[in-house]
Amino acid sequence: MTVAGRWVDDGNVALLTDLYELTMIDAYLAEGLEEEAVFSLFVRRLPRRRNYLVACGLDDVLSLLEGLRFTPEALDYLRSLRLFSPRLLDWLAAFRFAGDVHAVPEGTPVFGGEPLLEVVAPLPHAQLVETALMNQVHVQTVAASKAARIVTAAAGRTVVDFGVRRMPGADAGIKVARAAYVAGIDSTSNLLAGLLHGMPVAGTMAHSFVQVHATQLEAFRAFARIYPRTILLVDTYDTLGGVRDVVALSRELGPAFQVRGVRLDSGDLLELSREARRVLDEAGLPHVAIFASGGLDEDVIARLVREGAPIAAFGVGTAMGVSEDAPSLDMAYKLVSYAGRGRIKLSTGKALLPGRKQVFRRERDGRAEGDVIAVHDEALPGRPLLSVVMRGGTRVAPPTRLDAVRAYARAERDLLPPRIRVLEPADPAYPVEVSATLAAWRDAVAAELLRR
Amino acid sequence: MTVAGRWVDDGNVALLTDLYELTMIDAYLAEGLEEEAVFSLFVRRLPRRRNYLVACGLDDVLSLLEGLRFTPEALDYLRSLRLFSPRLLDWLAAFRFAGDVHAVPEGTPVFGGEPLLEVVAPLPHAQLVETALMNQVHVQTVAASKAARIVTAAAGRTVVDFGVRRMPGADAGIKVARAAYVAGIDSTSNLLAGLLHGMPVAGTMAHSFVQVHATQLEAFRAFARIYPRTILLVDTYDTLGGVRDVVALSRELGPAFQVRGVRLDSGDLLELSREARRVLDEAGLPHVAIFASGGLDEDVIARLVREGAPIAAFGVGTAMGVSEDAPSLDMAYKLVSYAGRGRIKLSTGKALLPGRKQVFRRERDGRAEGDVIAVHDEALPGRPLLSVVMRGGTRVAPPTRLDAVRAYARAERDLLPPRIRVLEPADPAYPVEVSATLAAWRDAVAAELLRR
Repeated sequence: MTVAGRWVDDGNVALLTDLYELTMIDAYLAEGLEEEAVFSLFVRRLPRRRNYLVACGLDDVLSLLEGLRFTPEALDYLRSLRLFSPRLLDWLAAFRFAGDVHAVPEGTPVFGGEPLLEVVAPLPHAQLVETALMNQVHVQTVAASKAARIVTAAAGRTVVDFGVRRMPGADAGIKVARAAYVAGIDSTSNLLAGLLHGMPVAGTMAHSFVQVHATQLEAFRAFARIYPRTILLVDTYDTLGGVRDVVALSRELGPAFQVRGVRLDSGDLLELSREARRVLDEAGLPHVAIFASGGLDEDVIARLVREGAPIAAFGVGTAMGVSEDAPSLDMAYKLVSYAGRGRIKLSTGKALLPGRKQVFRRERDGRAEGDVIAVHDEALPGRPLLSVVMRGGTRVAPPTRLDAVRAYARAERDLLPPRIRVLEPADPAYPVEVSATLAAWRDAVAAELLRR
Repeated sequence: MTVAGRWVDDGNVALLTDLYELTMIDAYLAEGLEEEAVFSLFVRRLPRRRNYLVACGLDDVLSLLEGLRFTPEALDYLRSLRLFSPRLLDWLAAFRFAGDVHAVPEGTPVFGGEPLLEVVAPLPHAQLVETALMNQVHVQTVAASKAARIVTAAAGRTVVDFGVRRMPGADAGIKVARAAYVAGIDSTSNLLAGLLHGMPVAGTMAHSFVQVHATQLEAFRAFARIYPRTILLVDTYDTLGGVRDVVALSRELGPAFQVRGVRLDSGDLLELSREARRVLDEAGLPHVAIFASGGLDEDVIARLVREGAPIAAFGVGTAMGVSEDAPSLDMAYKLVSYAGRGRIKLSTGKALLPGRKQVFRRERDGRAEGDVIAVHDEALPGRPLLSVVMRGGTRVAPPTRLDAVRAYARAERDLLPPRIRVLEPADPAYPVEVSATLAAWRDAVAAELLRR
């Protein structure tokens, strides 16, 4: 059971779960509580600086559910804890997820209280997968929702993900890049995301490259020799001096000069981008674009765009990678039905809506007007957002191509009212109602609980 | 190149890197720039709410460096990008990390500007590993530093990590749990962390367990039958009603009642813990402890402790898992020496100290008084914190046992002045100086750069 060399564990992801899931299943099996349960995964309320969320992570959820197995090593470990019955260990050894999943497609804008997905499965199955499902949907929805704001702020300019070095671990490094691409960024510097998801990859150069050369001009010359259409990093010593070195290189190379841009990574980006633009234009290099990076988030980008900074592309790292202003969501995965009966809880501030649900999005003239959360089989005006994506443990369709997910996300975001798509808190917020039928059901279940 | 089923990728972690690392290496090889480089990994400045950081992640760094290989699949992918020379691809195919690493032990308190580790290797080797090293050290240092605050706030009471469901991905789920344990928490609910790191695991029960039973008392009875020494979750419907059901169960079971505690997961935890304590004490159950969870962070815990809430243990999830108040650090991995000459950059706000370094921690009467960052071979008063941990690509010692790392972290934290170990911003901050020799070297390198 060595850790060394097991950089990212793979085979035992079934153990990416909370201990209590297994103790509860042990008790369920002892009591014969194996009837159908419905669990709903949703975000209770949006963070202050989010007018909408972008649902993301479903593809990994389905892969997980299809592949979830307990290895002999995992079972040996569980046995070693001396907590579980032989019945449970046998059940885990034979486990194959056999439930259904109903979900909104990846890239769908969602709001507080709306299910991102619902699992319908024998109770122990649905309970078992809680932790891993949330672990994957949470980070990806956090990231896609943040990236959507950055794409909005960039207002059509290119956005590149530079965040992997400060993203939380290898798995997040890959999945945040994908989520940000779903939300509309253009490419990533992360090669593993490129390999795994076929995302476009991009990059420039680092300060170290400049530092190891005797002069900056020599560094630029060497890099442009191998990568003629590169973007040169100009702020290692003095930003405008760096820009002048790029101009000097263009003089030196003449028609062979094909450098596409300069990157500014520090200082006052508004002022420096204007001066850099002026220096480049005066040197007859209007086609050399300005690329900005270094501590960017949606607020900084929006200000630069508003003030007319001549910046063509933004490299965004940490702020997007950890969703600095809202690193977590109040996301829950809650039992809402068991054995055909709606279930809720009454914990302070954490009330639930019972049963399988549907969300209807009402639209008029190509604009979403509001959502209604309803009982799953109600027929209400509007477009239903949830559909079945897994039956009996098998996907009902192959994974959607990433570019199609991205295009869908873009189209769905464009349907939102303009006041919801901005960075500032929307007033009024997007309207989300509970249908009369669902509200009555909730009240009836609550009244019954209070009578006991 | 399918993603489905590849839940967490393992074999291609060598591609967990930024594209520009490879383009730069391609240029280094073309130019023959393969002399010895020193890169320093450090945090520029501490977040406002951190008086110190707890260095963490070194063990994974060393495992990564020992095992880093480019698979045929990775090389095929890189070839498909049509960016790289055959020289680079051959070099990557044969790559084995051949450098040295000097580092502070995991669990060491560190401050702004101090190296957590330094890599000494042929330039392309040291450049190649930048992204993955930061990706691992960043998240683990963020997590250990946050967890240390939570342990401080709990003031000796038990702290359990409940965070995996909202941690960013599978890798973070495992590594944040480990980092928090290094920083002093007692156990985790995360079984995969338990398997991989031999950490103690713990857990209680979830609301769903209560919800699927006809009554709460029936749920408690069923769970206690299988897990007599369990902790029962009491807030599903009404917290004090839940506590009274626990009392009812104790009457029912008589001497067979062995339940160790009740868990409160919502509401006013101060008020509810007092009332729950009173109900339990009046029922002759003073040994049934109160466990609190639900939105806890160090501030909430400190307030509960200060007001004397009768809570024996805290379950902490999201706030610790994503380090809500400081989810990222201004961490950098920067070239500081090449071919025997100190290198820096002058970018605004991002100045560097040249060369390999040492940090001396001055202590008096068992109390750290301040640090001096010095040139690596200076002999100054105080205890040197960095030592060689890898030579020529091989660890100089087997990994330290996790419990030993945790004990070291505790002892080192106890050496810090009391004003640094509190939650509030320390005034004055912990003193960190640059040695006269290192300052003079930095100034000389800067002057030389400015002369060019």
